[in-house]
Amino acid sequence: MKKNLDAANLLYPMPTVLVGTVVKGRPNFLTIAHVGIMNHGHPQYVSIGLAKIHYSNQGIHEHKAFSINFPSEDMVELTDCVGMISGKKTDKSGMFELFEGELAGAPMIVRCPVNMECRLHDVVDFPTHEVFIGEIVASYADEEVLTGGVVDYAKVRPLLFDMPRRKYWRLGEPFADCWSVGKRLRRSLTGED
Amino acid sequence: MKKNLDAANLLYPMPTVLVGTVVKGRPNFLTIAHVGIMNHGHPQYVSIGLAKIHYSNQGIHEHKAFSINFPSEDMVELTDCVGMISGKKTDKSGMFELFEGELAGAPMIVRCPVNMECRLHDVVDFPTHEVFIGEIVASYADEEVLTGGVVDYAKVRPLLFDMPRRKYWRLGEPFADCWSVGKRLRRSLTGED
Repeated sequence: MKKNLDAANLLYPMPTVLVGTVVKGRPNFLTIAHVGIMNHGHPQYVSIGLAKIHYSNQGIHEHKAFSINFPSEDMVELTDCVGMISGKKTDKSGMFELFEGELAGAPMIVRCPVNMECRLHDVVDFPTHEVFIGEIVASYADEEVLTGGVVDYAKVRPLLFDMPRRKYWRLGEPFADCWSVGKRLRRSLTGED
Repeated sequence: MKKNLDAANLLYPMPTVLVGTVVKGRPNFLTIAHVGIMNHGHPQYVSIGLAKIHYSNQGIHEHKAFSINFPSEDMVELTDCVGMISGKKTDKSGMFELFEGELAGAPMIVRCPVNMECRLHDVVDFPTHEVFIGEIVASYADEEVLTGGVVDYAKVRPLLFDMPRRKYWRLGEPFADCWSVGKRLRRSLTGED
């Protein structure tokens, strides 16, 4: 039996990330999980949705850049804490050891096992939020989270965010191959191999 | 040690969904995981990124609507199969039992435990892709996946998609509360409760 839940946003779980910016000359970080993937290709575009009240937005507008950093499970307290402290009141620039890539204005967090630096491509404006669409300029990962040179999310151990129950979830295990597990069914339906 | 992975998109895992549309008078379905959350509030906006070659796009343009349906683990073969069959060649309208909400052009899948119907709000154009931003008009869930009236993703058992390794992953278990687990650390850093 279907229950109508009004217009609840149920598009979860989503990966929790730390967005890195430079605001008024200082690195700043914001915890979000309202992210998106725009396309598949090169250039590759991703989005982050930020309430306009956040301090980070002005840094993105100023430097036309931001970073996306993936915390591991062992960073859950720190990640949650960063999301509850505003850069307007508290200087967060010393909370993490940082590294720089190609862009100014996109400081990245050494302790996060996966990092992406993004050049601002476009801003989609909503009444209370700005969606920053970034072009991925470069991506980085700790060698410890790679399997055969490819990022292995079992090793990243991301924090998966669920707004309805306000929980961080662990990732489970991989259980099927994409563009593969459905092939037998496709063959039976269409005759195609 | 950080390894540079060029401009790889590492923004995963993402929830795999079946997008429902009506194209040329017939329901059609497409498997995607390149989704996004734009804001937090009412109205609530979400995005789906579709390559322009897909058949579904013309249905969204025509009806200014689409649905987002969440398959469970037990639908993995079917979900993967839908992603490998084009509506241009194969009529997918009979693959699922459907229900309708408020919008024409947004058929929803009964077997999927969570469904959202969206009214087209805007289209962000990329060279090879269109990002359809939808306003959530109504959301639905099977009573069996609710805990205390709220969607419980442990019961939904979503398919989490990972492009780098082309895998579907299970969701693990919740292990911390958002806006809560970091409070002790915040207190030690800022003195705020």
